[in-house]
Amino acid sequence: MEANRRKAMFRAAIVKMAPYVPGEQPKPGQRLIKLNTNENPYPPSPQVRRAIARAAAGSRLRLYPAPRADEFVASATRLYRMPTRMILAGNGSDELLAMLFRATLGRGDKVAYPSPTYSLYDTLAAIQEARAVRIPFPSDFSLPVEELARAGAKLTVICNPNSPSGTFTPIETLDALSRRLEPRLIAIDEAYVDFADDNALRLVKRRPNVIVLRTLSKSFSLAGMRLGLCFARPDVTETLMKVKDSYNLSRVALAAGAAALDDAGWMRRNVECIRSVRVITERALIRLGFQVPPSSANFVLARLAGRDLTDMTVRLRRRGLLVRHFATAALGDALRISIGTPREMRALFKALESMVPLPTRALRNSDS
Amino acid sequence: MEANRRKAMFRAAIVKMAPYVPGEQPKPGQRLIKLNTNENPYPPSPQVRRAIARAAAGSRLRLYPAPRADEFVASATRLYRMPTRMILAGNGSDELLAMLFRATLGRGDKVAYPSPTYSLYDTLAAIQEARAVRIPFPSDFSLPVEELARAGAKLTVICNPNSPSGTFTPIETLDALSRRLEPRLIAIDEAYVDFADDNALRLVKRRPNVIVLRTLSKSFSLAGMRLGLCFARPDVTETLMKVKDSYNLSRVALAAGAAALDDAGWMRRNVECIRSVRVITERALIRLGFQVPPSSANFVLARLAGRDLTDMTVRLRRRGLLVRHFATAALGDALRISIGTPREMRALFKALESMVPLPTRALRNSDS
Repeated sequence: MEANRRKAMFRAAIVKMAPYVPGEQPKPGQRLIKLNTNENPYPPSPQVRRAIARAAAGSRLRLYPAPRADEFVASATRLYRMPTRMILAGNGSDELLAMLFRATLGRGDKVAYPSPTYSLYDTLAAIQEARAVRIPFPSDFSLPVEELARAGAKLTVICNPNSPSGTFTPIETLDALSRRLEPRLIAIDEAYVDFADDNALRLVKRRPNVIVLRTLSKSFSLAGMRLGLCFARPDVTETLMKVKDSYNLSRVALAAGAAALDDAGWMRRNVECIRSVRVITERALIRLGFQVPPSSANFVLARLAGRDLTDMTVRLRRRGLLVRHFATAALGDALRISIGTPREMRALFKALESMVPLPTRALRNSDS
Repeated sequence: MEANRRKAMFRAAIVKMAPYVPGEQPKPGQRLIKLNTNENPYPPSPQVRRAIARAAAGSRLRLYPAPRADEFVASATRLYRMPTRMILAGNGSDELLAMLFRATLGRGDKVAYPSPTYSLYDTLAAIQEARAVRIPFPSDFSLPVEELARAGAKLTVICNPNSPSGTFTPIETLDALSRRLEPRLIAIDEAYVDFADDNALRLVKRRPNVIVLRTLSKSFSLAGMRLGLCFARPDVTETLMKVKDSYNLSRVALAAGAAALDDAGWMRRNVECIRSVRVITERALIRLGFQVPPSSANFVLARLAGRDLTDMTVRLRRRGLLVRHFATAALGDALRISIGTPREMRALFKALESMVPLPTRALRNSDS
């Protein structure tokens, strides 16, 4: 009865789809070391706070915000040397991804991406009733270019650096793939790219079918503010604009986003710290017996091949440490660990030391 | 070539659809009397500004917000006496409307609403490739209940008070329509309901197929903050949740929304002022020769039957007065005028006096 009612009310595809499950967000007052959703351990620029206070002053919030996010886009224009018409602002890059799937994919259309990757793509494909073509990564997480090109999907999505592997595909490889996919769209989700050594922005000018997505959630320490950017040719941004909520970003978000981009030096200093701690983290985890693919992001994937790490995740949680475990066949033996402060990472290493399998610990001891 | 490329990239329905056009938003520094997008002329509660400052303090914005908007929903629970599971928070009610269309309508599914109404419904129907059944209002804007019931659409949407007419359908009429539509969904878009004498929240408890949407943009003076609420049975909110961006509201928005709802007395005082000015506005416009349907919103529809008011809109714009003119067959002879401060309205009346047709002015003079 209940099920029948739902079917009368909603699209069948929505009734049967599984929802996207975000990582745990502690309740206010819960004291946990949060290494599960790739937040930045350092605060955003103090300019952001000041800009927010100005945007909320007096009676400003009674008026609608700029539908095209003028102030935020102007800052992006300066920082990224990209013309206004090639920039679209979103309520986090999640909203931009949703807009992209909505604008491009009808029922049965193919969308391709390597797997495992950001699981939101599966959810967005299901909403559109699109056919998701998931091309497995090889064990070294190098991009399966040939298979992606041959899939000939209407939309191809590459998360680079990839989550949850942290691995980076060279930009010239993406360029070659983009050329082969033309005129079909390829979106490069660069949520973590500020932690890498290169990025794909130059491809947006070179190739008419390339879309680059960015977020201020990670490198700019603004996960709580919901700010994303999309770079693409003007005909692409104009079409995406049609499926955007008119006023998708608040006046406060626009001011915060502009201030953050204007103080990109602050972001770069935080990124440098995180990259240093990432090196230490990779070494420590390898010493503990984990396999860790080289990371270009603000997290690492730590794997104990063939061992189900559900239990380890639960034990870490009990000790106040949140890490991300994906209960899938491909990832059940791995933890995705965000890079926190040096102190937070030491707490993690200490906790892990008591949990890793004895043979590995013996190995480590004989090493040192 | 360009057109062919777009077709390869995007869904055909998106390429051919017209975008939703929001009302003009002045650039910073432009001094205009803004009576075109139904903003509140009075500032939001000072508590909102304080809550925003707290939410943006220190390093709080580095963390993701609560995916279920806990703090904002808790305030809504108290104010509207509705259980948590029956409330869903959105980035403005526009996002909630988009979620609703996305979750319910597949290609060719029928969505019905009276016409003219909020034109976003047309845009959202086009994105879903749904069949929009627009039932014309009679000249007194009473709800065409029989035709809406007979349309048997998968989703029926009623904007109440309606925009742009400002007219109000009695809740018992909506209750009767809801009963006839069961189990198909009916959404009652109450963006303007705080300016009316009644509302449909009680129907959400009474009928399993009723959804009520609210926004904080109008009565709470927070158009710039993007906050909306959806009330429905738990099975409905749970299904809608699947098509929601995980983190659709920022930490700042959640804090602002909670503070605004907690100080609802502030909102009610502003609403009282606006209702008084609305009475004065209706009288003044009728004296000037306009037909004005009785308004239960924070705007009025002023009509000069059969006369194209494009030119009048342009002339008002030149005098620094923005009003909304819809260039359609049904509305070309009407202006939608938001209720501003008494001073703003006096400026409007003065400007209109020099523009209304002579016979009407003569009539007015002989009246007085």
